[in-house]
Amino acid sequence: MKISQASKDRAQALLGQLTLREKAGQLNQRLLGFQCYDRSDGQFSLTREFKQEVNRCGGLGVLYGLFRADPWSGRGLANGLAGAEAMQAYNLTQHYVIEHSRLRIPLLLSSESPHGHQAAGGYLLPVNLAVGATFNPELLRRAGRIVGRQLARQGVDLALISMLDILRDPRWGRSEECFGEDPYMAACFAAAITEAVESEKVGVVAKHFCAQGETTGGINGSAARIGDRELHEIHLPAAVSCCQLQVTGIMAAYNEIDGAYCHANPDLLIRILREELGFDGLVMADGEAIDRLDSLTGNSVRSAALALASGVTVGLWDQAYTHLEEAVTQGLVRPAVLDAAVLRVLSLKYELGLFDRPYLDARGRRTDQFSTELADFHPFDPTACPESKALSDQVPVLLKNQADILPLSPLTRQKIAVIGPDGDDIYRQLGDYSPELAPGTYCTLLQGLRQVFAQASITFCDGQSQTEALALAQDSDLLILALGGSSSRFDGVEFASNGAAQSGGNVMMDCGEGMDSSSLRLPGRQEALFKALHQLNKPVITVIIAGRPYCLEEIAEGSDALLYAFYPGPWGGLSIAQILAGLVQPSGRLPVSLPRSVGMLPVYYNQKPSGRVMTYQDTQPGPLFAFGAGQGYSELLYRDFRLRQGPAGTNHLEGVIINQGKYKACAVLQCYRRCLTAGFAARTRELIACEKVWVQAGQSLPVRLDLGDRVSLVYSLRRRYEHAAGRYQLSLMDQDRLLWRGELDIDQTAEPVADLVQ
Amino acid sequence: MKISQASKDRAQALLGQLTLREKAGQLNQRLLGFQCYDRSDGQFSLTREFKQEVNRCGGLGVLYGLFRADPWSGRGLANGLAGAEAMQAYNLTQHYVIEHSRLRIPLLLSSESPHGHQAAGGYLLPVNLAVGATFNPELLRRAGRIVGRQLARQGVDLALISMLDILRDPRWGRSEECFGEDPYMAACFAAAITEAVESEKVGVVAKHFCAQGETTGGINGSAARIGDRELHEIHLPAAVSCCQLQVTGIMAAYNEIDGAYCHANPDLLIRILREELGFDGLVMADGEAIDRLDSLTGNSVRSAALALASGVTVGLWDQAYTHLEEAVTQGLVRPAVLDAAVLRVLSLKYELGLFDRPYLDARGRRTDQFSTELADFHPFDPTACPESKALSDQVPVLLKNQADILPLSPLTRQKIAVIGPDGDDIYRQLGDYSPELAPGTYCTLLQGLRQVFAQASITFCDGQSQTEALALAQDSDLLILALGGSSSRFDGVEFASNGAAQSGGNVMMDCGEGMDSSSLRLPGRQEALFKALHQLNKPVITVIIAGRPYCLEEIAEGSDALLYAFYPGPWGGLSIAQILAGLVQPSGRLPVSLPRSVGMLPVYYNQKPSGRVMTYQDTQPGPLFAFGAGQGYSELLYRDFRLRQGPAGTNHLEGVIINQGKYKACAVLQCYRRCLTAGFAARTRELIACEKVWVQAGQSLPVRLDLGDRVSLVYSLRRRYEHAAGRYQLSLMDQDRLLWRGELDIDQTAEPVADLVQ
Repeated sequence: MKISQASKDRAQALLGQLTLREKAGQLNQRLLGFQCYDRSDGQFSLTREFKQEVNRCGGLGVLYGLFRADPWSGRGLANGLAGAEAMQAYNLTQHYVIEHSRLRIPLLLSSESPHGHQAAGGYLLPVNLAVGATFNPELLRRAGRIVGRQLARQGVDLALISMLDILRDPRWGRSEECFGEDPYMAACFAAAITEAVESEKVGVVAKHFCAQGETTGGINGSAARIGDRELHEIHLPAAVSCCQLQVTGIMAAYNEIDGAYCHANPDLLIRILREELGFDGLVMADGEAIDRLDSLTGNSVRSAALALASGVTVGLWDQAYTHLEEAVTQGLVRPAVLDAAVLRVLSLKYELGLFDRPYLDARGRRTDQFSTELADFHPFDPTACPESKALSDQVPVLLKNQADILPLSPLTRQKIAVIGPDGDDIYRQLGDYSPELAPGTYCTLLQGLRQVFAQASITFCDGQSQTEALALAQDSDLLILALGGSSSRFDGVEFASNGAAQSGGNVMMDCGEGMDSSSLRLPGRQEALFKALHQLNKPVITVIIAGRPYCLEEIAEGSDALLYAFYPGPWGGLSIAQILAGLVQPSGRLPVSLPRSVGMLPVYYNQKPSGRVMTYQDTQPGPLFAFGAGQGYSELLYRDFRLRQGPAGTNHLEGVIINQGKYKACAVLQCYRRCLTAGFAARTRELIACEKVWVQAGQSLPVRLDLGDRVSLVYSLRRRYEHAAGRYQLSLMDQDRLLWRGELDIDQTAEPVADLVQ
Repeated sequence: MKISQASKDRAQALLGQLTLREKAGQLNQRLLGFQCYDRSDGQFSLTREFKQEVNRCGGLGVLYGLFRADPWSGRGLANGLAGAEAMQAYNLTQHYVIEHSRLRIPLLLSSESPHGHQAAGGYLLPVNLAVGATFNPELLRRAGRIVGRQLARQGVDLALISMLDILRDPRWGRSEECFGEDPYMAACFAAAITEAVESEKVGVVAKHFCAQGETTGGINGSAARIGDRELHEIHLPAAVSCCQLQVTGIMAAYNEIDGAYCHANPDLLIRILREELGFDGLVMADGEAIDRLDSLTGNSVRSAALALASGVTVGLWDQAYTHLEEAVTQGLVRPAVLDAAVLRVLSLKYELGLFDRPYLDARGRRTDQFSTELADFHPFDPTACPESKALSDQVPVLLKNQADILPLSPLTRQKIAVIGPDGDDIYRQLGDYSPELAPGTYCTLLQGLRQVFAQASITFCDGQSQTEALALAQDSDLLILALGGSSSRFDGVEFASNGAAQSGGNVMMDCGEGMDSSSLRLPGRQEALFKALHQLNKPVITVIIAGRPYCLEEIAEGSDALLYAFYPGPWGGLSIAQILAGLVQPSGRLPVSLPRSVGMLPVYYNQKPSGRVMTYQDTQPGPLFAFGAGQGYSELLYRDFRLRQGPAGTNHLEGVIINQGKYKACAVLQCYRRCLTAGFAARTRELIACEKVWVQAGQSLPVRLDLGDRVSLVYSLRRRYEHAAGRYQLSLMDQDRLLWRGELDIDQTAEPVADLVQ
């Protein structure tokens, strides 16, 4: 969000009137908003702790999570805040803060929205990894606007949205929060969601910065032991694209990078983020992360000073930032550093119009009138917004379809057994950071199948009892296995103090924050279940619903069809059922490679060329299914592709795609480049352009893939992003197949050197 | 090796007389020495290729591997060079070079000696990983002198010795070439072997520089994606200790570090190696590595220029360095850079006395008289040197000894079945880079057992046939299972052009260079064999002979005793047998952590503190057996340990060790430190001192562990190795048990702050 000069000027003028304590209060975001209110007899009241905090600070900088609803917060449909109640609670809270601030400074409200608003009645989307499988940022842009609209209507100023993490190790429980393994696609999606939400006048806090997906061994929050090039090539591009859009905020990540914690790393938060990437917004700490710096500093006051001096603007849940006043008076950090941070917060409050119109009216518009009247309240209606469903339609990835077993006829009268833990549990379809959903606002796979195959006889069991499953299967014509993982916190999970799930609780939860896995096998007894069912020699269609890649070599081998759907969101069950019936055409592609075994990690496609990549003495080389894999119901022919060069920035590939099949089908044209004369060990492939194109049955469609000026944009030997003259190899791919390959010299000749493969 | 000013002066004078071509020739090491001679009718002759190379260069800088013997070279006991023949071949070769060099410049001879000389009749030691298990650098120092003596007697000037690689990923086939996972122990061992070999006037080329053990996914030669701190804390310390000893040479590693290939990395080879570490010797390329730079440069001439300018002194097998003359004439590299490299080579030749006494006499001494007379030849007798056996005695690590099943009585008359592939194959006991051995110069486990348990009835099968194994076991009182891996190239292995084994050849080879594994399970059907044998309910003693950690959870659980021996060398079979009989006391400790499963990698002990280290939702935390684990036949008590502080550099721990058992036993006192106020994310533990102490049965032994000045030596925030004031936590450990813990402030108080655990 661009901050106008007028807002900055007003903030500067106000800053001069603040006491040191009031300044520190503006950087405070210690409270858990969902614990700041009580409800009884339909009345809200603000808690004593909330009031104390406001009074202690002489105001409040930011309030986190007033609307958060999930098992950790203990808030749900019955006792959370939705619709009119959200408006009332917001106004009450804001009113209290303004009335108890000497200078009547309003608060900023922040809220988790990793895949839609994590609140009662929140409009949910598929998780990022599922969105990544669509290869369609435009769909995310449309859905993101709905999310933004809902957030704006509830008064949320800062939406905390995962978008910067890159999936480098699928053992990581937060894999689902990544758009995939590719930095270019992550940058495209990050731009889409940022632009969409901010277009609704809601600030986006992009998280996490930086390299949290790198991890050591897939362990959450662990060390990213990488160097500067790895950081720039893999982990920074998504942040670069957010910064180009002037994203409102960036959240620092828990991890360290080569020994430097992100929250105590001025090289990262100041030199790279502000100077190199040109970021001008606010840096938010992650939950309790500043307190963790005590292991470096020995105490809270010094931790606060270290974080502030390192570039952190506002805290989150930590005790440290309550000591900012002492940090300044003790001389541990210069007053000017504090002032600069406070100025950012105040400027944003002015820019958002909070000083002028701090409240919400009954239609969710900003007003200067405080009221909790509900007359004329106009609720937000998620069922009128098809954007989430449009996204989930493109999430499932068809990886196998032997003898064209799919699609099934929607008119089939077969006896279908749906078996598996992911068949009829909506919370296994949503991913982590999900609120309770109301009936009618979602569709499980089983519900979807019953809706789509209305004339079939559909039975279901979750497979917990193998005996029951075998009996059911024995009595059926066709098996649809709904296997996979779970990031559902709705079943007795235990929590760490920052809300991350802790292992040891519900054994069925194997994914999500805090649920890192040393095995990539399907959890529980699912593999044994599969083997037993496979032996019945019935047709088997396997649907995987998951938050991370699993190793599926035997399951892929034994299934007639395999559909992999990363948590596809509330309407994902319907999308999958419609795809199985051919009512929706499968168009997803893997946003992350699926390894054959956990021992061959890492398997991301953009390997370094040194070594004999992925060649072990005891297994086949390469992943089981690679990044970009995924097919449709019709085979496509890719013809006459060639490179066209024009003036700088107008290179493009063009060709024709022919659909000779019976079904509409989707091409996901991917152009990869390899620097051949970079002077450094350039990756074997890097995605630089991608276009998703629908081709009708029987159609020959001329297509064009613009490369912009991205062919020669590298992180150069001079350690900056810049265009480097030299020779580049380009590869056009789809479905993990090479369609065309050529080379070109940038800034050296005007024509491509050769079309090596056609 | 320190180069005297006199040698430098003479070299400088000579340099001025060399033509450009002759200079380039001095940096040449293209040939495979073992292909430079023919033998027929007991006569040697030099090959045409050798002569052409000498004539082309007007001399020869370095000749690689004249004596190399192994399956790749095709040289063995029958057709290789040993004893008198080695002397003859050396003299003939040297004579030819001198006679065909305009300025009569002798050649340098380099030879692989990763664990003793890889030549016919070479005196072999346990592999480095086995040596690491001894925790006894002094034993390596003694054995290294024998190796050096043999090398010197054969005219070897440069011994190529693995010592710089750190075992960070056990999937790597070259794990066996590392001293273990710990940088401090690696530095101690590297110093020991360097000092030992160089004391015999043989130059050591320490390899590989740098971070080759980091790898990506355990793949050989793959990218080390790490940053500067990881490099300095983990991968550089062994090089630091070599440089302090003025090691003669350093070999650059194949891998890249964060995008920069080591051979094209002046930051590594010049700024860090020469300026930071003070190295003044020659940098040798790894085999064909300079040619691999063509992927950056496009052609050999530019690759040669890049390597030379980056700090590489002499090539190895590459074509690139044959183009150095063109590289200079084309202006791609300055003549002064070439001169500086040539000067290093010539200086070393003077320092070694090669100009004055280039030949060997019949007693292996240097002489100025060329002769191939064998009268009075005095062979080197390895059987008179017990140093290798002394090392292997301390290699095996006792990890389990339930109900004190061990030691077995040497007088036992039991029927013992020895079963498994590692029971009676000497080449499975040696590791990679091994020559053919003559009978009488080694002892397999089976041979050792038969020698030690002379009254027992011992039968053997290799377990290939499970039926045979079960029958044998059924008929026995006790099972000794000899399981593990193999780096043996003696069984039909295929080779890459640089001599590394290629997968696809002999399936029994699962370790060694080029044999990276995606699974850490025992290869072949060994696990099934174990399960079948375990069900017989006979006492089971499992001996693992291996080049890397394997995952042994079930085998450890099912065995009554477990002894883990990394390839223990030619006499390792006898050492193990004597340990099983209690004639030698087990004293090894794990130099690397053994994971429970490959999916929990990395498991090295010196983790970063961020994240919940090694905590996965689906497995127990931590390795199955950790770095430093290992027990004896008697339990030791560690009493009254405390920290004594003196003037800088005289801190030490002292206490008493009590052996109340029946057997002599060994303590391996390990002191770990943790920086509590480092300002960076300091590792949870770093070994800084280690002492191996024998305690007699019944003895109470006062012991002292000197910490030197290492408590506060860190790679600081200022990015240099230096002493940092602050608070440090110290932990004394043995057998993976905490014995004492305390804290101290360095340069702040004179007394330890507290003894937290006693």
